[in-house]
Amino acid sequence: MPVLSDITSPTLLLDEKICRHNLQVMSEKAKRNGKKLIPHFKTPQSHLVGKWAMEYGIREITVSSIKMAAYFCGQGWDNIHIAFPFNPLETKNLSDLAKNQSLSVQLINEAVTEKLAKELENPVGFFIEIDAGYGRTGVEVSDFGLIEAILRKAKSTDKLKFKGFYLHAGHSYYEKDIQKLYEQTRAALGMLKSKYRSEYPDLITRTGDTPGCSVIEDFGDIDELGPGNFVFYDLMQVALGSCKREDVAVALAVPVVDIKKERKEILIHGGGVHLAKDVLLEPDGGKNFGEVVFLTETGWEIPSQRSFLKSISQEHGIIKASDELLSHIKVGDLLGILPIHSCMTADCMKGYTTINGQKVDHAEG
Amino acid sequence: MPVLSDITSPTLLLDEKICRHNLQVMSEKAKRNGKKLIPHFKTPQSHLVGKWAMEYGIREITVSSIKMAAYFCGQGWDNIHIAFPFNPLETKNLSDLAKNQSLSVQLINEAVTEKLAKELENPVGFFIEIDAGYGRTGVEVSDFGLIEAILRKAKSTDKLKFKGFYLHAGHSYYEKDIQKLYEQTRAALGMLKSKYRSEYPDLITRTGDTPGCSVIEDFGDIDELGPGNFVFYDLMQVALGSCKREDVAVALAVPVVDIKKERKEILIHGGGVHLAKDVLLEPDGGKNFGEVVFLTETGWEIPSQRSFLKSISQEHGIIKASDELLSHIKVGDLLGILPIHSCMTADCMKGYTTINGQKVDHAEG
Repeated sequence: MPVLSDITSPTLLLDEKICRHNLQVMSEKAKRNGKKLIPHFKTPQSHLVGKWAMEYGIREITVSSIKMAAYFCGQGWDNIHIAFPFNPLETKNLSDLAKNQSLSVQLINEAVTEKLAKELENPVGFFIEIDAGYGRTGVEVSDFGLIEAILRKAKSTDKLKFKGFYLHAGHSYYEKDIQKLYEQTRAALGMLKSKYRSEYPDLITRTGDTPGCSVIEDFGDIDELGPGNFVFYDLMQVALGSCKREDVAVALAVPVVDIKKERKEILIHGGGVHLAKDVLLEPDGGKNFGEVVFLTETGWEIPSQRSFLKSISQEHGIIKASDELLSHIKVGDLLGILPIHSCMTADCMKGYTTINGQKVDHAEG
Repeated sequence: MPVLSDITSPTLLLDEKICRHNLQVMSEKAKRNGKKLIPHFKTPQSHLVGKWAMEYGIREITVSSIKMAAYFCGQGWDNIHIAFPFNPLETKNLSDLAKNQSLSVQLINEAVTEKLAKELENPVGFFIEIDAGYGRTGVEVSDFGLIEAILRKAKSTDKLKFKGFYLHAGHSYYEKDIQKLYEQTRAALGMLKSKYRSEYPDLITRTGDTPGCSVIEDFGDIDELGPGNFVFYDLMQVALGSCKREDVAVALAVPVVDIKKERKEILIHGGGVHLAKDVLLEPDGGKNFGEVVFLTETGWEIPSQRSFLKSISQEHGIIKASDELLSHIKVGDLLGILPIHSCMTADCMKGYTTINGQKVDHAEG
């Protein structure tokens, strides 16, 4: 990797080959199932990765804030969906942005629907977000009173177009039985579709979490899939069984600043401000903030013996090192760290370097 | 607060009055004890806050990377100390920066000392970092072999000036008996000073962690104090007894996007990318990612009934709300959130707004 000799401080490497492979596999899966893939770009937050995605037939994306939507405006997306219960303080920004870009939002209460109905000057689509049952956000699936109140408010304007129902089965991150959880998701969205289809014949349903979209084969009559993390994957997804370590497309290159052989510890410059503080638990209750890979001329290699970050502070990380790693590492070398949660790591680092040394953009906001 | 009407998305508010009070209290404490205060600026990472600090007689700062040192070069600091086991890949950057700015680093092994001795073109001071016993970094206090090996290598050049010993008692974050811990710190640094003072008569000792510097009154013959977090404080420090809630100088302003009265939950736009994911545990084992304050015309007020963020994801947060909060909040209002770990929140947000609407800088890197 010619770029390695230029790296002196923590740098987020992006392997284009792996990232494209992830985009291709998910696109083909969606196509095979007759679903539309609308990836959540809160993970890469990048124009260049967006350009790659377009090469696999992806025409729409999802983001999680108005700022992120603004970042992608003008790149030629058929629609940008803001998958967040709409923040009413951003109504004017939304209306302005919608002048030149097809946008959609999520609504979960009457107050915000009413504000948009009154103040929008340009048309915006909306989904009603359904609470997936793990108590994050959304309208309860059986709360027809609220669903109909939102639809009624929306009808008072021609600026709000109802698109359908969105359900983020985010509890797939905690739930072992993803098949069962998807039966519930399919059932909930299917029930809503048949109830409201007569009035809204073009109504669509969307779900999208990376664990589900990675392992489920039968999505039933759900129309659209919106996973995000799969673009890069990470160790959380490896732990959930969504992917293999070899599918993780980003690694943080970090300098080795000290080695304590007798303790089998390696100190790196790389901590919470680079990786974020997401953590997996080891079988013995210890913490894992990321795993070591060996950087090579063409990317990175998974070591045969596992070494991992057992603790991090703001800028430091301490690796619990295997004998294999200790035997060939020295102070001043670079190592790679596969992140626990790639979305958060990318957001901390605000940019990538490909293994050919190309700089890749990431939204600032 | 006139600035409130301009805020539409998560914004980190900085109360100049509280921040100046924290700087003043710690400066006076250092002066009273005859110690030099050299605050760790990894917390604010800001020129403007640096300017305020200078008004309280602070002439030197500490940072945690070369990038952060570069950010503060040219602001007129007598010295900038990089409190991180020096990363040898940054030797050229260090040497270049040292041309126009007095700098010091921390050394903990021979390999890096040798590299600096060979390659530095401009003089740089150094501390030997002593392992405080909680296994993060540093030379063990009784490892005179390693201490002397580092000093020997450093003597081979006139570019490395030995300044003394640095011990970061970071385990004060976990240790209930801070007094006892400080006895150990004083004893370790005192022993090293008396052992090496004959050869290095100007040798100084430095320690600096916010819990210790906030609660200890007798620092013995330690020369310099280097706490960082006290500039802003946060809820972690409140929990440790270093400060009161009223001393926390930053609060994240967040829009309310949904309210579930029956569940006593409020959904905000504000999550891990804004606050970071540092967490405190509630007595019942639940999580606390930050606590609610009411934003006012002149800053914020601590509510009489406590409400806190019980869960966060990348962009969302869910508040477990008190009856007081539920009784007067509506969708579209702004709330303030006191952070668990202000250094990490500031690093996520990369900038502040004062309660008068002034934009305050934060380093990018």
